[in-house]
Amino acid sequence: MAEATASPNANASAVVHQLLARDAMSQWLGVELLEVAAGRAVLAMTVRPDMVNGFGTAHGGVVFSFADSAFAFATNAGGQLSVAVDCSISYPVAVHPGDRLTVTAIEQATTNRLAFCDVTVRNQHDVAVAYFRGTVYRTSRTHIVDASTPASSSP
Amino acid sequence: MAEATASPNANASAVVHQLLARDAMSQWLGVELLEVAAGRAVLAMTVRPDMVNGFGTAHGGVVFSFADSAFAFATNAGGQLSVAVDCSISYPVAVHPGDRLTVTAIEQATTNRLAFCDVTVRNQHDVAVAYFRGTVYRTSRTHIVDASTPASSSP
Amino acid sequence: MAEATASPNANASAVVHQLLARDAMSQWLGVELLEVAAGRAVLAMTVRPDMVNGFGTAHGGVVFSFADSAFAFATNAGGQLSVAVDCSISYPVAVHPGDRLTVTAIEQATTNRLAFCDVTVRNQHDVAVAYFRGTVYRTSRTHIVDASTPASSSP
Amino acid sequence: MAEATASPNANASAVVHQLLARDAMSQWLGVELLEVAAGRAVLAMTVRPDMVNGFGTAHGGVVFSFADSAFAFATNAGGQLSVAVDCSISYPVAVHPGDRLTVTAIEQATTNRLAFCDVTVRNQHDVAVAYFRGTVYRTSRTHIVDASTPASSSP
Repeated sequence: MAEATASPNANASAVVHQLLARDAMSQWLGVELLEVAAGRAVLAMTVRPDMVNGFGTAHGGVVFSFADSAFAFATNAGGQLSVAVDCSISYPVAVHPGDRLTVTAIEQATTNRLAFCDVTVRNQHDVAVAYFRGTVYRTSRTHIVDASTPASSSP
Repeated sequence: MAEATASPNANASAVVHQLLARDAMSQWLGVELLEVAAGRAVLAMTVRPDMVNGFGTAHGGVVFSFADSAFAFATNAGGQLSVAVDCSISYPVAVHPGDRLTVTAIEQATTNRLAFCDVTVRNQHDVAVAYFRGTVYRTSRTHIVDASTPASSSP
Repeated sequence: MAEATASPNANASAVVHQLLARDAMSQWLGVELLEVAAGRAVLAMTVRPDMVNGFGTAHGGVVFSFADSAFAFATNAGGQLSVAVDCSISYPVAVHPGDRLTVTAIEQATTNRLAFCDVTVRNQHDVAVAYFRGTVYRTSRTHIVDASTPASSSP
Repeated sequence: MAEATASPNANASAVVHQLLARDAMSQWLGVELLEVAAGRAVLAMTVRPDMVNGFGTAHGGVVFSFADSAFAFATNAGGQLSVAVDCSISYPVAVHPGDRLTVTAIEQATTNRLAFCDVTVRNQHDVAVAYFRGTVYRTSRTHIVDASTPASSSP
C-alpha cells in the first residue's frame, strides 16, 4: 500500500528499487537486482565492449562501480541514508567483455554511525575477480519511498 | 616519425594517447588529457546528469573511474605494461552533475615489479573530492605504439 | 627428519615455526600458533596493559600487527618467500586490555606473483574487532628451513 | 596555566603530550614528538632489533603503529576525541633495525563527523618507506587535559 511504502520504515526492496530507479550510472552498467535485504544485496551485470580500458579488458572503474552499487544498496536497504566514506578494491583476475558478473555485498558490522561492508565480485565461472570493502557513514535521515515507485517495478 | 613512435621506447604521450584511443570507458567519461609524462598524468572531465547514483550526486564509481584512468595513464606512460593490483579511495566531499573535475596522478615510488601512485581529484573550486591510492604490478611487456595512432591526436 | 624439513619443500608448519622463532615482534605480542597450512593461519593472543594507546584501549597498531603476523604466516606457509605490498584495516569495535583475540588469515586468490589474503580478528565474545586485507608479492626465493628449528617446537 | 590547559580548548601540544603520556605502545616504540599542531604531527623513532619480523626486517606492524600514532595525534590535537575507522598502508621499501624513521601526518580534509589524514614514513635517507592513509570518526567528546600533565613535559 502507498501509505506503508511511503513510511520511514519502508522495506528494503522498496528503498533499493527507488534508489536504482534514480541511479543513472547503475542503469548504464545494466545492473540487475537479484536479492536485497537490510544489509545485503546481490546484483548481476554483463560486461559490454564499451566498458573496456586501453588494454581491452574491463576498466577497473566498471568493476568498482558495480561493487559500489551493491555496497550502496546493501547499506541503505535498512532505510537509513548512508554515504560512502572509504572503499578499497583488489583485482586478482582480469574481466573481459562478455563476462557475466555477480556481486554480493554483505554488511559485516555496524556501529552507531558507521557500517562496514564486504563485497565480492565473481565471474560466470564463479571465480572471484574483485574483492571490495567499504565503510559508510549513517546520516540521521531516512529514505522516504515515493508511493509512485512501485516496489515490484523492474529497475 | 613512425619508426620512433613504434619503438618500445615510445614516449609517454604516444603510449597514453594510444591507451586512451582504445579506452571506451574513459571516452564515455569524457576525460581530457591535460598533462602526461612517465609517472604523471593530469586529466579533466565534467560530471553529467547520467553519471549520478540514487542520491542524485555523482556515483562513487564515476569518481573512482576517473581517478583510475589517471592512475593507469601515469603508471603506464613509462612504457612498461602495468596492471592494477590494489586501489583505495576516500570521499570527503560530494560531487554533483555539472562539476568540473581535475585529477592528478603521481607515481610516488617504484620497486622492480611494483609502483605506488597517489591520485587526488579536485572540483572546480580546487576542493579535494576524492583521495585515491593505487598499486600496479609491472609486467615484463612494453607498450608498442601503433604508428597509425598519432601522438598528437585528440582522444 | 632434518633432510626433509631442510628441503625447499619444507612443510607449512616448519616454515611458520621458523618464521615465528625469528619474529621478535610477534613474540612481544605473545602470539600463539593455533593452526597453520599453506594459505591459512590461525593465531591467538591476549592484550596486555602495555599495549594501549592514549585512550586506554588497545593501540590500533597492536591489532594490526597481530593481523599482519597471521597474514605473513598464511602467505609464506606455502614455502615461497612473500612480502607485503598493501594492507588495509577497519576497526568496528574497540579492543581492551585483557581481551583474548583470535585471528584467522585465509589466502583468497593468487596470481603468478601476487596473493590476496583476508584476515579477521575476533575477541573472546566472537565479535569481529578488525577486518584486514593484505596483498603480498611472491619473490622467486623459497624458505629454507634450518634443520635445527624443530617443526614441533612451541614458538 | 592549569585553568587554561584544563579547559576544553586545551591546546594541541597539551592534548598530545597527555595522549602520549598514557600511550604505552607509543612509548614502547620510542616515539619522539618533533612537531604537533591541530591536524598535524611529526614524530621520530629508531627501529630496534626487537622489532623485526621473521625475515629480519622491521615488522610491518611496527611501521604501521608508528604511522598510526602520528595519525592519532594529528587528528586528536584539535581537541575533539577522534577514533580510527579505516586505515591503509603500502610498503615500497623495507625497513631495517637501526633505521631512523620520521613520520609526518597531515589532516587533508574534514567533514562534520570525519577527518581524512595522509601519513608518510621516511627513513634516514629521506626515502619514503610507507604510505599510510587513515580516516577518523569525530566523537562529540573533547579532550580534557589534566592540569597535572605539564604541556612541556617530555613524553
